[in-house]
Amino acid sequence: MPKVVDHEERRAELAAAVWRLASREGLEAITVRRVAEEAGWSTGALVHYFGDKEELILFAFRTGADRVGRRLAKLDEHEADPLARARAQLLEGLPLDRDRQDEMRVWFSFLGLALTRPTLARAQRVAYRAWRERIRDRLREAQEAGQVRAEVDCEAEAAALVGLVDGLAVQAIFEPRLLSASRQVELVDARLEGLRA
Amino acid sequence: MPKVVDHEERRAELAAAVWRLASREGLEAITVRRVAEEAGWSTGALVHYFGDKEELILFAFRTGADRVGRRLAKLDEHEADPLARARAQLLEGLPLDRDRQDEMRVWFSFLGLALTRPTLARAQRVAYRAWRERIRDRLREAQEAGQVRAEVDCEAEAAALVGLVDGLAVQAIFEPRLLSASRQVELVDARLEGLRA
Repeated sequence: MPKVVDHEERRAELAAAVWRLASREGLEAITVRRVAEEAGWSTGALVHYFGDKEELILFAFRTGADRVGRRLAKLDEHEADPLARARAQLLEGLPLDRDRQDEMRVWFSFLGLALTRPTLARAQRVAYRAWRERIRDRLREAQEAGQVRAEVDCEAEAAALVGLVDGLAVQAIFEPRLLSASRQVELVDARLEGLRA
Repeated sequence: MPKVVDHEERRAELAAAVWRLASREGLEAITVRRVAEEAGWSTGALVHYFGDKEELILFAFRTGADRVGRRLAKLDEHEADPLARARAQLLEGLPLDRDRQDEMRVWFSFLGLALTRPTLARAQRVAYRAWRERIRDRLREAQEAGQVRAEVDCEAEAAALVGLVDGLAVQAIFEPRLLSASRQVELVDARLEGLRA
């Protein structure tokens, strides 16, 4: 079905244009006209794929969340040790390099917008829930393997770890010199060390 | 100087209108016209105090940050124990009741906007720095009093604690049932317990 593939590819192209534009100018800059320009499309062609700005933003957010999700899933394949896997999947949420700094900036812009947009808020919830569950499951595996103390509540700890990563990301985006990449990693590692059996 | 007091009061009135409107409809709704309506002013009267939307938003953010700062300073007066003071000042950043839920929603909207607005980003940096330094100083006092282990790096730990609180707030705003007030407090307490000598 080459036509379907093409359709998905073209939507992905538009989502990438939304992220580029939002990273440079903020989500306020996202309009059907500006995204069409950024992607090198006509406004008419874009409207064929997305009816309005809201749909465009929602699709762009989901595309970004899926991209992160795929990176996390890949880490599951490459790392056998469950605690090391949890660590790798947490570090993915930190703005440790330029690409992830840009990614996190757009992520937090979506968050600001989601506060008053129910469909976007739902997409945020789904993304955070998936991240928390992934970390929780790794912690439980680590607990069963005897790496993590038996009394750790893996569900609560997953929320705290995701919270720590998110909160460090907020500070690091505004003050990259204060919270260097190595400092961010150290702070997450210190918390993980505290869970060890 | 009654005129000066009046001027400050009227600016504060406008800042309150910005927070109410932003809490209901998001920062996108903030325009000179809408804020004038919300405050029951004429647009002309408002423009006398704030030249444009940017100034209005910046002033509203600072007003909110000052309000939080005054609450934190008050906690210093009412609590002698330094570790209990750090705790109280961290809990102020959690959306534990309806008022603070509204406050945090607007706070994170400012954050989204600050990513592409240098003056707002500066104001954010100042606010987070003040919060971190306050927590760091309490931790150092607690360390000197023998409450906190000597090897704790209070500067790094303050960034981690502020990060934890901020990250929990993000998740709690979108999923209040999942992260109840008591669960949020427990997670912060668990981290503070881990610092004890």
